[in-house]
Amino acid sequence: MPLTNTSLANTHAYKSFGGWTKHYGHSSKTLNCDMRFAIFLPPQTASGAKVPVLYWLSGLTCTDENFMQKAGAQRVAAELGVAIVAPDTSPRGDDVADDESCDLGKGAGFYVNAVQSPWSKHYRMYDYVMDELPALIEATFPVTDKRSIFGHSMGGHGALVLALRNPGRFNSVSAFSPISNPVNCPWGQKAFSAYLGKDKTVWADYDASLLMRMAEKFTPALVDQGLADEFLEQQLKPEALEAAAKASEYPLTLNRWEGFDHSYYFISSFVESHLRFHASHLS
Amino acid sequence: MPLTNTSLANTHAYKSFGGWTKHYGHSSKTLNCDMRFAIFLPPQTASGAKVPVLYWLSGLTCTDENFMQKAGAQRVAAELGVAIVAPDTSPRGDDVADDESCDLGKGAGFYVNAVQSPWSKHYRMYDYVMDELPALIEATFPVTDKRSIFGHSMGGHGALVLALRNPGRFNSVSAFSPISNPVNCPWGQKAFSAYLGKDKTVWADYDASLLMRMAEKFTPALVDQGLADEFLEQQLKPEALEAAAKASEYPLTLNRWEGFDHSYYFISSFVESHLRFHASHLS
Repeated sequence: MPLTNTSLANTHAYKSFGGWTKHYGHSSKTLNCDMRFAIFLPPQTASGAKVPVLYWLSGLTCTDENFMQKAGAQRVAAELGVAIVAPDTSPRGDDVADDESCDLGKGAGFYVNAVQSPWSKHYRMYDYVMDELPALIEATFPVTDKRSIFGHSMGGHGALVLALRNPGRFNSVSAFSPISNPVNCPWGQKAFSAYLGKDKTVWADYDASLLMRMAEKFTPALVDQGLADEFLEQQLKPEALEAAAKASEYPLTLNRWEGFDHSYYFISSFVESHLRFHASHLS
Repeated sequence: MPLTNTSLANTHAYKSFGGWTKHYGHSSKTLNCDMRFAIFLPPQTASGAKVPVLYWLSGLTCTDENFMQKAGAQRVAAELGVAIVAPDTSPRGDDVADDESCDLGKGAGFYVNAVQSPWSKHYRMYDYVMDELPALIEATFPVTDKRSIFGHSMGGHGALVLALRNPGRFNSVSAFSPISNPVNCPWGQKAFSAYLGKDKTVWADYDASLLMRMAEKFTPALVDQGLADEFLEQQLKPEALEAAAKASEYPLTLNRWEGFDHSYYFISSFVESHLRFHASHLS
């Protein structure tokens, strides 16, 4: 449905495990376009309770739907009394710049603030997830201002970068198969070249391994990585994050799992442990 | 990939909760075409144990993928030591008759043996699920000959019909939002007219409510139905099944749930209780 400048519109609502998985559209000032997000409201909110919020950032090609449909997180979030918010992965709409490939443009916002034309007009996912979306969520829904953040692949990169650059903003951070060192992998180099230009000092602000190596204030961090992940060696590079954590004595737990790949079958197998990790830091 | 007449080919394998979600292609003699199915093998099979099999029949438009991706069943099946097999919902391929609508033809096999042209050449999903697929599964995978069956919507209809017509074949049967009385609803009347022709005595062999009303041998049966289901009144008619169970004193548990709709958000919310129901009858 078309949205006015200020509207927030519920488009879908699905009862899930006693709570509700809902999708909303709204007009984003940061991104200069209409956006969608999903929210799971656990059953505790029905009786007036306010709950903490766990933000989920999805990977390449995803929307606000994938995590809610495939991860199986609502069961545990309903038990723990945690809301989950899943934004889309890029600005959207006919006048938003795009690229034919799946790793640049729509579905591939990389959670950065683009400074290069034509991307800078809309691609400001860092600010959107950092400021506009939480302000909207906290003004609209029965939630507290306690927040944690997690994500997958490109979204794991986004979650780590947001937490590392803003100590105290999130109670905890976790990632499945994150792009851990984007300045040194093809996906990151392609996206950062387009969105951020040639100045690699700007790139460093969006690289979890570089940020973690310099960190002085810490957010509890958990990473799970499948060893049968087809992107492990070329794109994900968890060893860079591990070395950075060692250098700064960052409280990172990084688990490697034999046989698991990059899919939601991996995420769904470990999502319960991530939710319990975050709940322990949100309570 | 193209399949030879006798080949069984593993096309995808995803580690899930310590077990494996796998997809296979094979050449079906019953359906006269190449088919796909999914199987979840729980971790118990890795150490040589044989496990019982729970067959899942999907609803309109689905394939072998939907249940495995969205229901969240692997977590519980891994705990209980039960394999799950999910066939496709119709014959497939370029030479298989189809219809433009979503409730007839491909994706809408209705688990019947068609007797009308052009459908009868391939549309024999009843025999495929009843005989060919279990024989293939039991000859190929580390499973016992203990079987239960469940499904959703059109697949709930299929599961109930297969169990009702073959007492002793399945240890238990369950359904989410089944098409309970297809001879009296638009979906069923359209499909049965096309596949089965005008003779309504043939239709009666595929109607769960008519079969349950006449039943003398029983299979434990569980049905869950959401009360916000958009198809409840016109297509699903659980009251017909309930009345039939009352007439024959059939051991049917039918639960109605406020707020839940026809989606996988409903299925995922209750799949654990279905798996535990079946496991209690398979052990």
